[in-house]
Amino acid sequence: MPSGTLLYAQSGGVTAVINATASAVLQEARARRVRVLAARNGILGALREDLIDASKLPIAAVRALAHTPGGAFGSCRHKLGDLETDRAKYARLLDVLRAHDVRWFLYNGGNDSADTALKVSRLARAFDYPLTCIGVPKTVDNDLAVTDCCPGFGSAAKYTAVSVREAALDVAAMADTSTKVFVHEAMGRHAGWLAAAAGLAGQGPDDAPQLILFPERVFDEADFLANVRRVVDRVGWCVVVASEGIRTADGRFVSDAGGGRDAFGHAQLGGVAAHLAGRVKDALGLKVHWALPDYLQRSARHLASKTDVDQAMAVGRAAVRFALAGRNATMPVIRRTSDAPYRWTIEAAPLEQVANHEKTMPAGFIRRDGYGITAAARRYLEPLVRGEAPPPYGRDGLPKYVTPPQVAVARRLADWDG
Amino acid sequence: MPSGTLLYAQSGGVTAVINATASAVLQEARARRVRVLAARNGILGALREDLIDASKLPIAAVRALAHTPGGAFGSCRHKLGDLETDRAKYARLLDVLRAHDVRWFLYNGGNDSADTALKVSRLARAFDYPLTCIGVPKTVDNDLAVTDCCPGFGSAAKYTAVSVREAALDVAAMADTSTKVFVHEAMGRHAGWLAAAAGLAGQGPDDAPQLILFPERVFDEADFLANVRRVVDRVGWCVVVASEGIRTADGRFVSDAGGGRDAFGHAQLGGVAAHLAGRVKDALGLKVHWALPDYLQRSARHLASKTDVDQAMAVGRAAVRFALAGRNATMPVIRRTSDAPYRWTIEAAPLEQVANHEKTMPAGFIRRDGYGITAAARRYLEPLVRGEAPPPYGRDGLPKYVTPPQVAVARRLADWDG
Repeated sequence: MPSGTLLYAQSGGVTAVINATASAVLQEARARRVRVLAARNGILGALREDLIDASKLPIAAVRALAHTPGGAFGSCRHKLGDLETDRAKYARLLDVLRAHDVRWFLYNGGNDSADTALKVSRLARAFDYPLTCIGVPKTVDNDLAVTDCCPGFGSAAKYTAVSVREAALDVAAMADTSTKVFVHEAMGRHAGWLAAAAGLAGQGPDDAPQLILFPERVFDEADFLANVRRVVDRVGWCVVVASEGIRTADGRFVSDAGGGRDAFGHAQLGGVAAHLAGRVKDALGLKVHWALPDYLQRSARHLASKTDVDQAMAVGRAAVRFALAGRNATMPVIRRTSDAPYRWTIEAAPLEQVANHEKTMPAGFIRRDGYGITAAARRYLEPLVRGEAPPPYGRDGLPKYVTPPQVAVARRLADWDG
Repeated sequence: MPSGTLLYAQSGGVTAVINATASAVLQEARARRVRVLAARNGILGALREDLIDASKLPIAAVRALAHTPGGAFGSCRHKLGDLETDRAKYARLLDVLRAHDVRWFLYNGGNDSADTALKVSRLARAFDYPLTCIGVPKTVDNDLAVTDCCPGFGSAAKYTAVSVREAALDVAAMADTSTKVFVHEAMGRHAGWLAAAAGLAGQGPDDAPQLILFPERVFDEADFLANVRRVVDRVGWCVVVASEGIRTADGRFVSDAGGGRDAFGHAQLGGVAAHLAGRVKDALGLKVHWALPDYLQRSARHLASKTDVDQAMAVGRAAVRFALAGRNATMPVIRRTSDAPYRWTIEAAPLEQVANHEKTMPAGFIRRDGYGITAAARRYLEPLVRGEAPPPYGRDGLPKYVTPPQVAVARRLADWDG
């Protein structure tokens, strides 16, 4: 049994499969007889010395995490400043790591989390504390650099494509006397990955979604409305998928219904579909419905992609292996080796190449007219939503999700007043 | 082979399983060697003589309808007036029925559709035209009289309960530093059946949804906000499920309050969840997210309840049997004979007892404080969401839904100018 403790924490927006990664981390660590602590609510749990003894979780609960959405240990939105600015915070963190003999730190999150993991690795080096830091990828936004795709995205993509296909059948049936336009709002602040995934719901120009609005393209209301009109005239109805982050030519977000900013300083969005629906109704006089699935799209474990679950578990296992091998400041990433048949492997990428970089969607993924996806996008996206991995259901007709017992680790330090 | 034609049509808002009923109608009619025509877009297809020869559909397509959401033949929102007012319309309808030797008419819908079926039966009697009219139940609103439950409701209920359970795991993980309140808007203008179904997602008072808002209770904003505050203080986060039809003491729909002007000066379409989220944010200063699944909740065939699919098919088969037996002006309804084990049978109810009646939720289903469901509600609801009946999925990761070829029947009459 290797001496020392592995600390695992979850960060940023959770996904349908981040717990599958946690499950794989715990299973791999058990197989290697490594003790695992989990920090509650991400890096904040480490700072607060709010730790859970994950090695004591019943194996049944560990396995059940693989089919449970949400973040079993709690997540957080908290970005560490640089070593100078946040000196006290870093000192405290080092105290906690020392107190619990943490030798490996796995931080499971997106861009900001990779940045945090990188900073913690620099902190350890600056203080000569022997620590291996691994970033573990996760985000429905699919915007991490280096990796071909991000665990969490495939399931949200599948949810989006399936939901849009289903809603389109509904609208098609109602269009003669009722709803003619349906607007579906997809997550995606800066990159239209999830909106693009909706494109998988149809094939030809008359299939839904007939219009996709990407944040990568300037939103031109007049052109959009003219297109809606054309589609309704031709098909009888129109399904629009709008990315939450679309902006007009002057750089303003089309809708900012949530107002305010989140803890990372990002604009808090959420009202694009309602706005577009209003415009369709007022300007075109068409009956319109809209959907805002919000968290439903990133927590729909019942509709997870098997590819996504497999990759989420693979990066978890690899993260433990990389940690124990001392591959400091790296992230296990997915490399695609073939589109058809779809093949992928796990590789190690330097955290420096991941942290604070944002992968945008290739320009070649958006159709020339700006309202749909290309064959190249389809080749990229389709394998990611492939395969089903439904959770077990109980006699009550609901998925058997678990909330694992959280055995707190006794504190060894005074309270943190940060 | 019985002489004459059976005419089937779909009406009102479609569901995840109305096509399962259609599939059962077509299969039962084939077994009895009865020719079936389907009217496109409900009763309007009958008036327009826009008919599909459903007997010519490939059997594979007929079977696949059982796992396809939406309305395969198109639906409509169109209510017939009384015989005097709509005399010309009724004369035309009779002409079409005669021209195609229609002897059995099956109208698959909700309250209004039962009313239409009843009117058509009276029309036939008034003109001595031999016609058996059957209403076939369908509605996610679960508000039809006589029947214990309505095909379509169980699947929407399952979607709602599962979605709320999943979103709650997300919120629980984020609450420490981010979203503390989540509002999920459920369909239900007059009765809170779907909002009640969300109650199946949890058991104890700390489980989500901690607060359900029913249209059966007056919405008191101050009391609601105080409750949100209490739940957040106690649990750390709060999931609210709001029925779209909640009203304040003066009778105004809360959803109307949402319809102001957006930042661009355009009309902002309303929504209960958006409004409540805004109030939680402004009055309590809590970070809030909200979801409006809209059509997604009634077309989510991927998450259908097996009980619901079974019942949808059973009423379809029974409708054909009742029609051929000449049980005019009836509807096959579901009678519950036992809660545990759950048992049900199909019976015939007079359309007069169904048409234009609306079944409200029993007062004993809502908890005394008005924010949750009782054990009695749970006993009623739980069997309806039980069992899974997933559609087959393709290699592309999406459900194999079908759009059956629509073989038009040659017209025998002049165009209708109604």
